[in-house]
Amino acid sequence: MSDQDAPTTPSPAPAAPSPASVTSSPAPPPPSGRPPKVTNHGRSSVPISTSNSDFTDIPETEYFDAPGPRGYPPLTGYIDVSNVDMMRRPNERNKIEHHTEQYNSDQLIVRRGQEFKIKIDFNRPFNPAEDKFAVEFIIGSSPDYNKGTYIPVFPTAERQSAWKGRITDQMGTEVTMGITPLANCIVGKYSLYVAVSTPFGIRRTKRDRSRELYILFNPWASGDAVFLNDEREREECVMTEVGIIYHGSFDDVAERDWNYGQFNYGVLDACLYIMDRSEMPITNRGDPVKVTRKASAMLNARDDDGVLVGNWSGDYTYGVAPTSWTGSTEILLTYASSKMPVCFAQCWVYAAVFNTFLRCLGIPSRVVTNFYSAHDNDGNLKTDIILHDNGSIDRNRTKDSIWNYHCWNECYMTRPDLPAGFGGWQVVDATPQETSDGMYRCGPASVQAIKHGQICYPFDAAFVFAEINSDVVFYSRSKDGTLQPVKVNRRHVGRMVLTKALGNMTRRDITDQYKFSEGSAEERTVLEKAEEYGCSRDKSDFPVGDVDVILPSLEISMGESFNLTTEFINRSDKKRTVNVYVSGSVVYYTGVISSEFLFETPTVKIGPNKTVQEVMEVKSEDYMRKLVDQANLNFIVSGKVLETGQIISAMKVVALRNPKLLVEVSGGDRVSEEMMVSVQFTNPFTFSLENVYIRMEGPGLMSPKVKYYSLIPEGASLTWTESFSPQRTGLTRVIATLDCPALRQVQGQATFTVNP
Amino acid sequence: MSDQDAPTTPSPAPAAPSPASVTSSPAPPPPSGRPPKVTNHGRSSVPISTSNSDFTDIPETEYFDAPGPRGYPPLTGYIDVSNVDMMRRPNERNKIEHHTEQYNSDQLIVRRGQEFKIKIDFNRPFNPAEDKFAVEFIIGSSPDYNKGTYIPVFPTAERQSAWKGRITDQMGTEVTMGITPLANCIVGKYSLYVAVSTPFGIRRTKRDRSRELYILFNPWASGDAVFLNDEREREECVMTEVGIIYHGSFDDVAERDWNYGQFNYGVLDACLYIMDRSEMPITNRGDPVKVTRKASAMLNARDDDGVLVGNWSGDYTYGVAPTSWTGSTEILLTYASSKMPVCFAQCWVYAAVFNTFLRCLGIPSRVVTNFYSAHDNDGNLKTDIILHDNGSIDRNRTKDSIWNYHCWNECYMTRPDLPAGFGGWQVVDATPQETSDGMYRCGPASVQAIKHGQICYPFDAAFVFAEINSDVVFYSRSKDGTLQPVKVNRRHVGRMVLTKALGNMTRRDITDQYKFSEGSAEERTVLEKAEEYGCSRDKSDFPVGDVDVILPSLEISMGESFNLTTEFINRSDKKRTVNVYVSGSVVYYTGVISSEFLFETPTVKIGPNKTVQEVMEVKSEDYMRKLVDQANLNFIVSGKVLETGQIISAMKVVALRNPKLLVEVSGGDRVSEEMMVSVQFTNPFTFSLENVYIRMEGPGLMSPKVKYYSLIPEGASLTWTESFSPQRTGLTRVIATLDCPALRQVQGQATFTVNP
Repeated sequence: MSDQDAPTTPSPAPAAPSPASVTSSPAPPPPSGRPPKVTNHGRSSVPISTSNSDFTDIPETEYFDAPGPRGYPPLTGYIDVSNVDMMRRPNERNKIEHHTEQYNSDQLIVRRGQEFKIKIDFNRPFNPAEDKFAVEFIIGSSPDYNKGTYIPVFPTAERQSAWKGRITDQMGTEVTMGITPLANCIVGKYSLYVAVSTPFGIRRTKRDRSRELYILFNPWASGDAVFLNDEREREECVMTEVGIIYHGSFDDVAERDWNYGQFNYGVLDACLYIMDRSEMPITNRGDPVKVTRKASAMLNARDDDGVLVGNWSGDYTYGVAPTSWTGSTEILLTYASSKMPVCFAQCWVYAAVFNTFLRCLGIPSRVVTNFYSAHDNDGNLKTDIILHDNGSIDRNRTKDSIWNYHCWNECYMTRPDLPAGFGGWQVVDATPQETSDGMYRCGPASVQAIKHGQICYPFDAAFVFAEINSDVVFYSRSKDGTLQPVKVNRRHVGRMVLTKALGNMTRRDITDQYKFSEGSAEERTVLEKAEEYGCSRDKSDFPVGDVDVILPSLEISMGESFNLTTEFINRSDKKRTVNVYVSGSVVYYTGVISSEFLFETPTVKIGPNKTVQEVMEVKSEDYMRKLVDQANLNFIVSGKVLETGQIISAMKVVALRNPKLLVEVSGGDRVSEEMMVSVQFTNPFTFSLENVYIRMEGPGLMSPKVKYYSLIPEGASLTWTESFSPQRTGLTRVIATLDCPALRQVQGQATFTVNP
Repeated sequence: MSDQDAPTTPSPAPAAPSPASVTSSPAPPPPSGRPPKVTNHGRSSVPISTSNSDFTDIPETEYFDAPGPRGYPPLTGYIDVSNVDMMRRPNERNKIEHHTEQYNSDQLIVRRGQEFKIKIDFNRPFNPAEDKFAVEFIIGSSPDYNKGTYIPVFPTAERQSAWKGRITDQMGTEVTMGITPLANCIVGKYSLYVAVSTPFGIRRTKRDRSRELYILFNPWASGDAVFLNDEREREECVMTEVGIIYHGSFDDVAERDWNYGQFNYGVLDACLYIMDRSEMPITNRGDPVKVTRKASAMLNARDDDGVLVGNWSGDYTYGVAPTSWTGSTEILLTYASSKMPVCFAQCWVYAAVFNTFLRCLGIPSRVVTNFYSAHDNDGNLKTDIILHDNGSIDRNRTKDSIWNYHCWNECYMTRPDLPAGFGGWQVVDATPQETSDGMYRCGPASVQAIKHGQICYPFDAAFVFAEINSDVVFYSRSKDGTLQPVKVNRRHVGRMVLTKALGNMTRRDITDQYKFSEGSAEERTVLEKAEEYGCSRDKSDFPVGDVDVILPSLEISMGESFNLTTEFINRSDKKRTVNVYVSGSVVYYTGVISSEFLFETPTVKIGPNKTVQEVMEVKSEDYMRKLVDQANLNFIVSGKVLETGQIISAMKVVALRNPKLLVEVSGGDRVSEEMMVSVQFTNPFTFSLENVYIRMEGPGLMSPKVKYYSLIPEGASLTWTESFSPQRTGLTRVIATLDCPALRQVQGQATFTVNP
């Protein structure tokens, strides 16, 4: 008999009084190591089906009653299926009418809420009065009519199930059947059977992989939650493979080409694998709210071994640099085959691959870029900048950062889970953020709700609201450790939101979809509404000062020396003296400072109502050896007016312009005819480039290719030539990147039209 | 020079044209194995502080300026701190006024939004005109005034920071200082320093663990989000250590005693460890919405190696059976010391340990039990029961289950993130559910929002709504595989919600806080509102039948034989014939069927306006050998009226009454005087009990004890006697359980008052 305080410490039994007949002994060994795997036995009746690649095969024969004395009666002699034609060739009407002809797949791919056709050939002409059959669809390992994972479809008007069926044509022994999946059915890969019903039981076709079909979301069907009633939008946000992702700075926007490749071979299967890997229940996969929320978690590797590993360190030795990718295909196919997260991504890579996922499944989507995106370090609407007593920046204590830009996705859907008015575009973001509900996922958050400050609705609307509406608050730090706000900039963050225009390669400013215009009454109302929901702001009121400082827009090529001209304006009738601190740093696109290359502390005297310019020379060699990643320079001017104590400040990010790749295409410009592409580059710098990767790809042209150069000396040129044969007609692009540790995100592209 | 299609397949370089001076070679090895660990370098300026056990020590001296030609000036000669008295003894005013005197801890424990006092002894009398000092509080590894992780508190009215400070008393060299932490400050363990300010710099006290203090949520402070303006509620939901958790069935409610033990030694540290383990940012730990949501995820081991491993299998060999625990202390201390999930839990264990966590941190909370709780298998408002053509249940196809009961927590707080009106009690649930937003966590969901069908608000309100409002829909399955609804029971689910009454050991029915009364106009409005937010229901309308079937309430002791009397009522003027299927099964409390022990198919004839009783005998031996876990029997009667085709059904769960432990206490009933407790049990069955664990504990009496008996033969008795010394006065309980594979949840308790 043993006494123990806890199950962790069994001890030998000391002698103790015990009823004669009761046997006691030392307890069995306590649990050790990892807890045992516990099944759901006793917890739920059946395991939840979470894999679209598991199928439960259904029996070929199924009797209605127990066998008689002579066993089961034969089910022969009735009508029998000799062949099923899925009508799955790209040029057949199914794929054309369902806008799926571009998928590089042999299987039938259709969209829900819209009729498609198959042909069934019987062993004799079908007689509707006598013969009974059903086309059965099965998805997942636990087929169930009520869960939408087993759907029989009947050919006669009298007998219909959830999915409508009808015979559209009959010729000899062949019946053409039209089938309309429910507009909210599960999206994924189904198995198809034809079941003939006899008085004694059911006879089915054998399982046949050629009869598997994919059913996708349908932006063309009015009953679908992703219905988008605008053909130009659908063409852009579902069908378009080449995209442009904006970056750089709001006053010098740069572009990045991306091949979404949603129709490429294997991409659709990879997207389904992502949902399987997330263990998302099959029954949830018809709901675009649940699919997009789950995908926002799965696209990043945090928590769940999802698709992409984030890396903002500048060291990408053990993977591909985020700036090096040219498209999503390579990433998705690698993930699906290796079943391991792919290295590495930053925000635009997450957004681009998420975009492929969404378009591939049929959810309209686009990548947007928010310039000056607040990074929510502690869930309020403030980005804090701490100044020393003298007006210069206290770098040790300034911990918040503002991303020069941040990319996320919008996807289009109704929101039946929210009050009316919040459907339409929804923000989803797969970049792992630190504090979005404690999880590395974000959205869907209604853009309408964000615009109107209705941030109490799921999912993560308050988080996105802060990214575009935060204030930049400057604090002065006293010697006793406290901080006093001295200046607020309410205009800096969320300066501009861009996405690619419909149908062409220009940009589209959609800032007004996220915010009312600055200073408007609506804007004030929205900020007050958001405050009601806990988004606290700094409401300090500061006297308008009479000295302004302005940093100019700059368009600088990498390696260039230039002048930084700061303008000081005195709007008072008295003279003003300003102790100025000018700091120039190399920054990551996340706003995090890498190193300072310029620091000057001029004292500027400005006469009454005068303007003074302060010019500082920035030499190429000052910043070149300190560059990181995306070659952003960040200039901050701050200072204190001696006469008034006014704090002045200005910030400017300059994205250096990189050299370009020259991409040239030559040849027939016709489908299946060989063409050539050459990528040319000259090292314009006074140093060698080492460990250089060049990548290229093009939708409908070639799969991703990569070439490695260990060294490109100062001034040297290279040309890489490849041949390819266009697979389809239309306007297309070859996209190329060059990337090495000393020089990131060099790009080039060639646009041309493939003729039939 | 090498061409590669993807980074996964480097190949030796084939000869290819190359500019003379460009060197290319095979690419370096591609990534393999696990992706490298990536830091947040370049991503954010500082790592997010997520551990309350990490402290950054701050320097003892801090100079304002760079050293002069002779080095730093000495900081001596100014006032100096000789001692700091935290006034942390249980009988001092701090702990009494802050309701923390029961915590078994040597440290100071106070609540936010309310003043506490410390005494500072200087080397000479303090002179407010000359001497300057601040009391500094630091939490986490990244102290920052703006984030609330570094707070200096000043003694003079002219100079105040976010936390108010004042000198309440000065006597000789000793100053008593009153400090009021902000009512929304971070909850956790702080370090305290006293810093003396001199013209040249700051001198601080050394770090001293005795000066660490805990700041908790404060239901007594009107500015705190968890303010609960009712002393009786606070007494029950914050201060009470012994609870009752209801289970069994709604018409035969059983009780389970539980020792929450929130004041026990080590429990508070274990609760902070849980948040550290979850990597919850320190800066979020003042927000009860975020703390409770995170904790609902961390209390279960799914996803995140949280506290408790769920097990519903009936096999608890490698851990402690969920029915065996008597309190939370053993579980929390084991988790904090082993840093491994503890085995095993079912819903009431999750709810009970969560309750300890909440009360320990100062968030008012209670455990509630929902009888007939729908288990959300696919996110709609239906529980599907599939019948064969003949009216009997199709067990293979009935996959949904209704939990006989389910326990969750309510916690009390304002909801600034939601529109007005949704504060107050909030549902949180740590039992891992399958589909709550894809994660194993749930809530906080506003009880008011659930009652009014406003299920669009975070978090998981729709999920909880379904648990108490689902319909039970009976379907008839046709031979062609389709299902037609034939009957709906809108009253079965969410039959009753119970929690313990305030201040005594009786129960309190709070069903009306979740639902309007059945059949009321408000109830209909609520269900329609919920439907607007996507909670689809079955709206089939069925003719009211004229035959009713009623299963009686039964109160059966385990091992008893009894009669099951089913009553059939014919309310028509014609005779009715019913083909009846009566099934009796042993079920888990989750409603999952273990095995059937009764199946009869009588045909019942009922005269016009007559009632017929059908009596079936249930023998002890029929069900005893099939019993699982909590000894629930589930009877289902279903059938079809021949004359009208009406489907009838009735369901009833009978929780068998277990034998009891006899717990007797004897001795002085005074603090610190030795007392004796004996636990007695006689095996009343005709079989032996093997591998028996008996546990006991009592708040303020003894820590959990466990005793193991390898065998208790048929009819044998045992007595286990322990001595203990009560630690505090008041009404208390000794709680004991007996548990073995053949007999679960045998309980007993003794209640008595400890006098001073």
